[in-house]
Amino acid sequence: MERLSSMYEDRIRCAAVRGKVTSAAAAAALIHDGMRVGASGFTRAGDAKAVPVALAERARQEGKPLRITLMTGASLGHDVDRTLTEAGVLARRLPFQVDKTLRDAINRGEVMFVDQHLSETVEMLRANQLGKLDVAIIEAVAITETGGIVPSTSVGNSASFAILADKVIVEINLAQPLALEGLHDIWIPGRRPNREPLPIVHPRDRVGAPVIEIPPEKIAAIVITNMADSASTVLPADEETEQIAGHLIEFLQHEVSRGRMPARLPPLQAGIGTIANAVLAGFVKSPFEAFEIYSEVLQDSTFDLMDADKVTFASGASITLSAARHAQVFGNLDRYRDRLVLRPQEVSNHPEVIRRLGLIALNTALEFDIYGNVNSTHVGGTHMMNGIGGSGDFARNASCAIFATKSIAKGGRISSVVPMVPHCDHNEHDVDVVVTEQGLADLRGLAPRERAVLIVEKCVHPLYRDMLRDYYRDALKQGGQTPHRLERAFSWHTRLNETGSMREETAALA
Amino acid sequence: MERLSSMYEDRIRCAAVRGKVTSAAAAAALIHDGMRVGASGFTRAGDAKAVPVALAERARQEGKPLRITLMTGASLGHDVDRTLTEAGVLARRLPFQVDKTLRDAINRGEVMFVDQHLSETVEMLRANQLGKLDVAIIEAVAITETGGIVPSTSVGNSASFAILADKVIVEINLAQPLALEGLHDIWIPGRRPNREPLPIVHPRDRVGAPVIEIPPEKIAAIVITNMADSASTVLPADEETEQIAGHLIEFLQHEVSRGRMPARLPPLQAGIGTIANAVLAGFVKSPFEAFEIYSEVLQDSTFDLMDADKVTFASGASITLSAARHAQVFGNLDRYRDRLVLRPQEVSNHPEVIRRLGLIALNTALEFDIYGNVNSTHVGGTHMMNGIGGSGDFARNASCAIFATKSIAKGGRISSVVPMVPHCDHNEHDVDVVVTEQGLADLRGLAPRERAVLIVEKCVHPLYRDMLRDYYRDALKQGGQTPHRLERAFSWHTRLNETGSMREETAALA
Repeated sequence: MERLSSMYEDRIRCAAVRGKVTSAAAAAALIHDGMRVGASGFTRAGDAKAVPVALAERARQEGKPLRITLMTGASLGHDVDRTLTEAGVLARRLPFQVDKTLRDAINRGEVMFVDQHLSETVEMLRANQLGKLDVAIIEAVAITETGGIVPSTSVGNSASFAILADKVIVEINLAQPLALEGLHDIWIPGRRPNREPLPIVHPRDRVGAPVIEIPPEKIAAIVITNMADSASTVLPADEETEQIAGHLIEFLQHEVSRGRMPARLPPLQAGIGTIANAVLAGFVKSPFEAFEIYSEVLQDSTFDLMDADKVTFASGASITLSAARHAQVFGNLDRYRDRLVLRPQEVSNHPEVIRRLGLIALNTALEFDIYGNVNSTHVGGTHMMNGIGGSGDFARNASCAIFATKSIAKGGRISSVVPMVPHCDHNEHDVDVVVTEQGLADLRGLAPRERAVLIVEKCVHPLYRDMLRDYYRDALKQGGQTPHRLERAFSWHTRLNETGSMREETAALA
Repeated sequence: MERLSSMYEDRIRCAAVRGKVTSAAAAAALIHDGMRVGASGFTRAGDAKAVPVALAERARQEGKPLRITLMTGASLGHDVDRTLTEAGVLARRLPFQVDKTLRDAINRGEVMFVDQHLSETVEMLRANQLGKLDVAIIEAVAITETGGIVPSTSVGNSASFAILADKVIVEINLAQPLALEGLHDIWIPGRRPNREPLPIVHPRDRVGAPVIEIPPEKIAAIVITNMADSASTVLPADEETEQIAGHLIEFLQHEVSRGRMPARLPPLQAGIGTIANAVLAGFVKSPFEAFEIYSEVLQDSTFDLMDADKVTFASGASITLSAARHAQVFGNLDRYRDRLVLRPQEVSNHPEVIRRLGLIALNTALEFDIYGNVNSTHVGGTHMMNGIGGSGDFARNASCAIFATKSIAKGGRISSVVPMVPHCDHNEHDVDVVVTEQGLADLRGLAPRERAVLIVEKCVHPLYRDMLRDYYRDALKQGGQTPHRLERAFSWHTRLNETGSMREETAALA
């Protein structure tokens, strides 16, 4: 191994740990049945790519129980969650995932999935509320002279995982450019009850260290990899997302003209996924001058906006790009370097900073109801899609919390605006604005009855508008602050189950 | 008026405003139809007592439209909300109330009630999201030489109301002891986006001014009153609340023994109302040594715990006591003075401080479901009870968020644990522990299917346990991360509407 490790002197600068270079299989041997493992990775960026796969391979070969709790930042790439699921390695998974095979196992009750606010996982770990973390697997671009770990394209939960775990496995990924070094700002909250304020008062503030600082002797193994991040899977903008962006830009212009927002917008957060990315990209054509992004994942749209001189600075917990953008950004990182910082997700998503900065938060809804309650996670109220992610961290504490969705799905068989959401991730208290391609409803300062009228008139697809008016009229007979007919509240969802469509006439014609 | 005002030189020390002393009716004349009015008052403490009543009287006498938006800290005493409702003065009310007459008007749709997190009202006002505040009515014990307003038994939203309103009416209440002066700590967040951290790092920290600082020329009228706060209406502890306290104390001892909490507990928050007060009072008999309270309302239990040397310091936004405790505490304020501070509710309930301090948050649930979602506000999912209050501010950001309720109500005709809550104020992501007199369920780190089993076995009343087991068994056939039968999810609530009981056999026997 000595010869091998000396090849990577620029990547492993701490002589004391050079002898730890080993194979993924040997590193995975540190992980035993029943352990809690924390792995790097946030929205497919900077994920541990070799050791989890080697672990799955071992489980398949040994054929004896090897089931772990796996915690990550957010979603992983390279089908790692699928590979682990198929090998039966996942007993428990948190706090987020986007893998179809894993999702199916979760929904069958085979993997216990703990769907968490992304800012909270390491806070709970630190407070010993999730048990002791045995092993951390962290992708890095380098280990410094003093043993500091330089993360790659995401920070996510990596820093606290490394600090809190008994043993740390580092995956040095040669495919990740060394130029990433210096981009990170690692600030870790102190132990309570004597914690000091989180000192960020501006998205560009650097308040921590550029590396993850742990005692080098905790590094139990180093594995060399050479594999690019999985490319982003988000879809390009389409007519509906452009319409949503248009409504939002008009709304924000109105906010500025009414003196509710400064002409230079407050910092923006945009959630993971196609709609938020496409809507944000729509801001390239907006009249707004330079603004900042304080978000979790930085997607293609962030760099579109930088190139258009709309975004002057972007703070995130990860960078997840399409293949073309990936090559362009990481091949020319100096072009963006001074306008970027990557932070722990506990910091990017911290209630304290979000409220202090007064963010505009834009997140995607699976569906919302006539009173503005949002379902972000559960298809049909029961089946997990991905998880709540950071949407709750941001929506609760933003100065303006916006949820966007297309008004219909599946060719009109599903309405994204429903009488009552069968799973509530964000309630009326936290949702300021809802928007579809049909229009935008500003719910701030309105009582539920006022919200309902506005949402029905502004956001619902014409295919469902009369049905929703009818529901609301009937609900009013029941009265109350938030009128509902509990007998009918989920009738759209049960009809969808039974007939394949939420629409009434489909049932009649069937 | 000159003679009158000179009588109150100890109360009105700013000579420039002494001439503003006038009658409640004359002060109320500053308020016109369509205005937005902010009034002091938090859980019946320190409420404006004279001007709102004079306004109602004028509305009755004039018989022409006089409808306002009324914002307060939280609930008012002296039937002020009833009086205003009966006079038809309330067009819009926020962010909290507890009055039966007002509640009925809200539920009939006659008063638009905006149910808000208590930390957010003045944040939204400051950001111009709720319109301009025309008049503030603030109860005070004194006005200082420089025009500083010394609040009485609550701070609530008074400071920001006074700062943001065009005109300020001060009610100097002679029945409130001058000894209250110095108890308050008024810190106001700066305008965003250049806001600094909120510097509280310990419940006892004083970071602001002892008075509300506004230009004296904004004081448009001063009204002299002499009326005690309405006494607290909370009920004494009973067998069930003592059992709940017992479960909680056992849980917290376990947390300490497992190293999850320090032996000196983290600061405690306890919500408004009978159950939280009674449970907190149960801590008098706990083995815990001195701890601190960082809460919104300080009820009798706070002083019981101080007298028992259990609580060394208490920070709140108001003090609301029973008649006997009121006389004892305010007659001997020096006994408690060094252990008390009253803050704006924006500070007492601020996410930044709550998360930093790592509070234990204890709040009351109206009902919760098998997955730990909590309804705090809506009877039957439709009819407003009081409002969410501060429970969301605390539960989302506490290190341990606990919700308590008795397992049954109305002699067993209602189960407080239901298949699905018909209104969700706190969802699975924010609820760590649920407890009834039956037992306690620690939900942290558990997937929904695990939560359900625990809640059914630990918290449900025996009258409903088999019914809930049956529901869950059936829901499992539907599968998913959060199994439900949407067709049956609200069947307990609709049965209650139809038969007067959630129990199945009642229906069969009827």
